[in-house]
Amino acid sequence: MWPDRRLMDLIGTELPIIQAPMAGANGSALAMAVSEAGGLGSLPCAMLDGAKVRAEIGVIRQRTSKPINVNFFCHTPPKPDPARDAAWTARLRPFYVELGLDPDAPVAAPSRAPFDGAMCEIVEELKPEVVSFHFGLPAPDLMRRVKAAGCVVLSSATTVAEARWLDDNGCDAIIAQGVEAGGHRGFFLTQDITAQPGTFALVPQVVDAVSVPVIAAGGIGDGRGIAAAFALGAAGVQMGTAYLFTPESLITDLHRARLRGAGDELTVLTNVISGGPARGFMTRFMRETGPMSETVPAFPTAGGPLGPLKAKAEAAGSSDFSTQWAGQAAALGREVGAAELTRTLALDALQRLKTLGASAKA
Amino acid sequence: MWPDRRLMDLIGTELPIIQAPMAGANGSALAMAVSEAGGLGSLPCAMLDGAKVRAEIGVIRQRTSKPINVNFFCHTPPKPDPARDAAWTARLRPFYVELGLDPDAPVAAPSRAPFDGAMCEIVEELKPEVVSFHFGLPAPDLMRRVKAAGCVVLSSATTVAEARWLDDNGCDAIIAQGVEAGGHRGFFLTQDITAQPGTFALVPQVVDAVSVPVIAAGGIGDGRGIAAAFALGAAGVQMGTAYLFTPESLITDLHRARLRGAGDELTVLTNVISGGPARGFMTRFMRETGPMSETVPAFPTAGGPLGPLKAKAEAAGSSDFSTQWAGQAAALGREVGAAELTRTLALDALQRLKTLGASAKA
Repeated sequence: MWPDRRLMDLIGTELPIIQAPMAGANGSALAMAVSEAGGLGSLPCAMLDGAKVRAEIGVIRQRTSKPINVNFFCHTPPKPDPARDAAWTARLRPFYVELGLDPDAPVAAPSRAPFDGAMCEIVEELKPEVVSFHFGLPAPDLMRRVKAAGCVVLSSATTVAEARWLDDNGCDAIIAQGVEAGGHRGFFLTQDITAQPGTFALVPQVVDAVSVPVIAAGGIGDGRGIAAAFALGAAGVQMGTAYLFTPESLITDLHRARLRGAGDELTVLTNVISGGPARGFMTRFMRETGPMSETVPAFPTAGGPLGPLKAKAEAAGSSDFSTQWAGQAAALGREVGAAELTRTLALDALQRLKTLGASAKA
Repeated sequence: MWPDRRLMDLIGTELPIIQAPMAGANGSALAMAVSEAGGLGSLPCAMLDGAKVRAEIGVIRQRTSKPINVNFFCHTPPKPDPARDAAWTARLRPFYVELGLDPDAPVAAPSRAPFDGAMCEIVEELKPEVVSFHFGLPAPDLMRRVKAAGCVVLSSATTVAEARWLDDNGCDAIIAQGVEAGGHRGFFLTQDITAQPGTFALVPQVVDAVSVPVIAAGGIGDGRGIAAAFALGAAGVQMGTAYLFTPESLITDLHRARLRGAGDELTVLTNVISGGPARGFMTRFMRETGPMSETVPAFPTAGGPLGPLKAKAEAAGSSDFSTQWAGQAAALGREVGAAELTRTLALDALQRLKTLGASAKA
């Protein structure tokens, strides 16, 4: 038995393991494998249009009747800032020239859109058991509609203050996202990435501060990490990087090779990929323009002009302009199927808790 | 029983809890209270001369026959850089003027000295059971002498690569110092503070990489944290900030008040206090000159000209120029005596492990 059943009772799963939604890196295949194995599979929708969201949820529902999570961003789109955009395009011009791309071709719109009324209608119609948000919560009217549809609502806190805010604003369980986590920092009340707490410090303080179950995220790579999360007071975990290793993830071969060879490699926080700070492996583009830049356009605008560089370089087998998110525990990953990974993680964690308890009792 | 006795067997303590040596913030009183309670008390010597080290160890030996740790820095003193020093002095000149201090008065030498032959003689004579180092290990000849004196040697690793290096160079147990930790980062193979792993990610990866026992440090504030450290594979913990709250610590009333009121306050890494990155509460001086500065003199040189500002401001009740180190779990601290704290932490951790294990078995 798990030491804390509150999260599982809330979301209706057999296991306290949530597969982190990873926009661009996972779709229905990973989500349904994890849900069917007893965890909570997550479909990231921030980079999908409504038709694609419907189609993906439809695929998942054909393969599992177990609970699923549908994830949205809820950032406030930035005000247009043509001067800043132009400066950034100029900064990227030498790369365009180097790769033989037209630096004056029109740039695609940002590919990450916030949750809105149209997406809310899909949620109300398809009623996923769980809806999770990144960057806070949507406006109160949308939040009310999601909850009225019967969905359990999750969101991420990167500080104790953010956790209190989520608890006060109707979030049903809170993901405590430590600085170890791969991908985008979910912060929404602070912008100071130099003061983001690590998972070890954040989880117990959030547990003490809120009334709802807490989900630990960031740096959790195996059963030891899950056991440790429960020791800190969490009622479950959210794991992303571990699932990037599975055949069900949608990452490129280049990204997969980087994960395999992670070894002692350290990941860094960068804002030059999207405009918002996110953790991943260092690339040439990150090194030469950041990895943190004060002149980058606001999230998610910065992503537009990077697209053509990434596509051209990757077609030539280069990671120079790639997005290769990873958390700090990447080296703990193993290449197994998502269902097997989910079951093994749970068994290892329970065994670890039993062994620790037996020693302590002796 | 503790799930892993390797550290306790190595250092000869009843409990797997090391009180972190905190230069300037603790002396013999804290160390002897912790050792006598069954943990490992630590005397920080980086800011003491030989006579003071002898005197402090003498005081501890009068009060406990249990194992103690004596801690030294082993940084390489930087080459003189008068231009950089002059630029920094000029940067600080307006603060001197504001506080009515003479900006042209001679500046004190840095107060943090590395371990040397003279200190090694004291170690050989007084034979503390444990000697711990910060910033790597001393030169091979000094290292051999310390080990020949029968001392167990510990040092801190902030990355897996540093842990491997310590293991390969004769360290008997390795402190995995996560980015949550208060005070100085112990790094010695990297200088990149933006890529320092959190405790949750670092500990299991170090456990997998080295042959010796691993001590978790950074963000551990209570029995939950100790239990979680064992879940991650650690054989013990090192805790600093929790001991700053005890009456035995030597911190100022201003620092104590800041800790008491920590609440949701976030700590930051700064290099403007000493030249080397360290974690603490934000001050006016840190905000106005950093908190990270690329023009600060190298560690530990930067500390000299700050001294008079700190003394003058603190005499007037101001923390503007203070050094108020703290880790990210400061809000978990409680004001009890060091002996009681040590015993309570151990009992809470064991109870937590028992409870977790009993649930997992049910």
